[in-house]
Amino acid sequence: MSDVSDRSARTRTHTWYPAAPDWEAMKRLSGVEYLRRAFADERTRPPIASLLGMRAVAFEPGRAVFEAEPAEFHYNPIGTVHGGFAATLLDSAMACAVHAACKPGQAYTTVEIKVNYVRPITADTGTVTCEGRTISLGSRIATAEARITDPQGRLLAHATATCLLIPLERPG
Amino acid sequence: MSDVSDRSARTRTHTWYPAAPDWEAMKRLSGVEYLRRAFADERTRPPIASLLGMRAVAFEPGRAVFEAEPAEFHYNPIGTVHGGFAATLLDSAMACAVHAACKPGQAYTTVEIKVNYVRPITADTGTVTCEGRTISLGSRIATAEARITDPQGRLLAHATATCLLIPLERPG
Amino acid sequence: MSDVSDRSARTRTHTWYPAAPDWEAMKRLSGVEYLRRAFADERTRPPIASLLGMRAVAFEPGRAVFEAEPAEFHYNPIGTVHGGFAATLLDSAMACAVHAACKPGQAYTTVEIKVNYVRPITADTGTVTCEGRTISLGSRIATAEARITDPQGRLLAHATATCLLIPLERPG
Amino acid sequence: MSDVSDRSARTRTHTWYPAAPDWEAMKRLSGVEYLRRAFADERTRPPIASLLGMRAVAFEPGRAVFEAEPAEFHYNPIGTVHGGFAATLLDSAMACAVHAACKPGQAYTTVEIKVNYVRPITADTGTVTCEGRTISLGSRIATAEARITDPQGRLLAHATATCLLIPLERPG
Repeated sequence: MSDVSDRSARTRTHTWYPAAPDWEAMKRLSGVEYLRRAFADERTRPPIASLLGMRAVAFEPGRAVFEAEPAEFHYNPIGTVHGGFAATLLDSAMACAVHAACKPGQAYTTVEIKVNYVRPITADTGTVTCEGRTISLGSRIATAEARITDPQGRLLAHATATCLLIPLERPG
Repeated sequence: MSDVSDRSARTRTHTWYPAAPDWEAMKRLSGVEYLRRAFADERTRPPIASLLGMRAVAFEPGRAVFEAEPAEFHYNPIGTVHGGFAATLLDSAMACAVHAACKPGQAYTTVEIKVNYVRPITADTGTVTCEGRTISLGSRIATAEARITDPQGRLLAHATATCLLIPLERPG
Repeated sequence: MSDVSDRSARTRTHTWYPAAPDWEAMKRLSGVEYLRRAFADERTRPPIASLLGMRAVAFEPGRAVFEAEPAEFHYNPIGTVHGGFAATLLDSAMACAVHAACKPGQAYTTVEIKVNYVRPITADTGTVTCEGRTISLGSRIATAEARITDPQGRLLAHATATCLLIPLERPG
Repeated sequence: MSDVSDRSARTRTHTWYPAAPDWEAMKRLSGVEYLRRAFADERTRPPIASLLGMRAVAFEPGRAVFEAEPAEFHYNPIGTVHGGFAATLLDSAMACAVHAACKPGQAYTTVEIKVNYVRPITADTGTVTCEGRTISLGSRIATAEARITDPQGRLLAHATATCLLIPLERPG
């Protein structure tokens, strides 16, 4: 963690490319294929990833794993990492787990998430891992769950999500 | 919104001061007084505020209001602002609404949040307002709700939260 | 409350008519009209109402109100009314609030509910009122909230729900 | 399922004994021991069990399993088992899973539950099984999850819960 006796201003610069979902590729590729390709190239990686400092680790059918390093710039007013850090990681892992269960031509949108914060996260926690898994996949609704663990495997937060599945319009 | 035909890399620099909760002040001040003071000075404002680009608008007993401008750097892989942006705003507004209901010497921690995403948020949405309100305040548990609206007053997302109230140790 | 010094077995008999949703009427009537008619006649009232001892008080566009008397037969193993009593009332009020916002030909199904238990409910609480209101109504998703209060107006429990809207097939 | 062409009134009588939590036993016994004893005897079984027609199948440390037969008397106005049936089973399984993780002298109360309804439940579903498991057990907060499955093992509903742990006063 940064030296808190040094009270001077800190700065950080993050870099991103304009988000550009490739709807044609989404009609052709399975969710897993689409996600692997999108995260492999920094030019198609979503801007939120560099904002928060999170990276995709694995996409498999119905499963998505992200990692991140909690840092001082994520802090809330009460001296720990803001809950929004965990909520963003969990939301990503659950949405991508559902996406990774989608067939070509299927899109989705997250309807709701529910997050439980179990242990405080600080800049001393080390790299956290967030694993999302699809629980159920119907014709219109999918549900998923995710957990964040620290390097010792201790549970830091867990969540569930509900997604709406939306068929992409097929080209004529 | 930025010109999406320009596909070059973008950068942004954010600035913060090390988070420094003032536990002695928390024992002496009501939650409203503490929050107003903490957010008035950029040196005590939480780092997450500059990371996401959100600012406090009002703190009253049991009520907290934040504002933010959704931007391209908040985007997810499917071309809209990531759900974590709304979740972070809502979490802040609900936690601060509970804090703003606390008496001197009372601290809190957020146990869980539940967020419903109602309308997509984009870089064209304009300034969004997030208002949190305490629903119930018991001796150990408090609950709160929050809503995000766009400049036309349309509902974009809503949430509830459960907080655990923790008495701060009194000095001897 | 019943005399707990009397430890003998109690019995209660509830009466219902087979549930019979009238899909043709649902295509013709607004949600409010359908609900008012269904609850007005004991032969079309849902069986769950007599099982739990709850009754409909009001249906207006986007709003539904139920009442019930918590009793010993609702008790859990720790000496208060089981959370399922409140969950059932809240689920009913939210689902019916969404139904009461539906146009003719629109059906719905509840996707998820989230319930906060604020104060214990006992057989001494008296008649509780559960009011549900629609928060948002999109083309496919609706959200609602509900609160249970005691005769003194104190909040006992609150909830939110997400419903999926489903168009009924139109007759040829 | 009952013959729906027969539209006459049905009745059912349920029997219970007054709920009587044994606080002295709770100080002496682990949660598992307390629950096994309470559910083994119809005189200490909670009234909600006979109201809904559910029974305890197993209690192990941090785990609780219930069973029930969905029936016509559980029906909602739209021709399926009311969501309150699943919510009550899930709430029971999660609360008892947390109780079954408690040491002697520890009590708990459920703060909130979140339920996802995955497949409709009807009187034709057959016996459903509801298994709850503790996810995290802190000093003040515990979380749990539960799932309901049909006889073919298909997921019907799933849930999470947050409980507050409360130390029982020790006798002098």
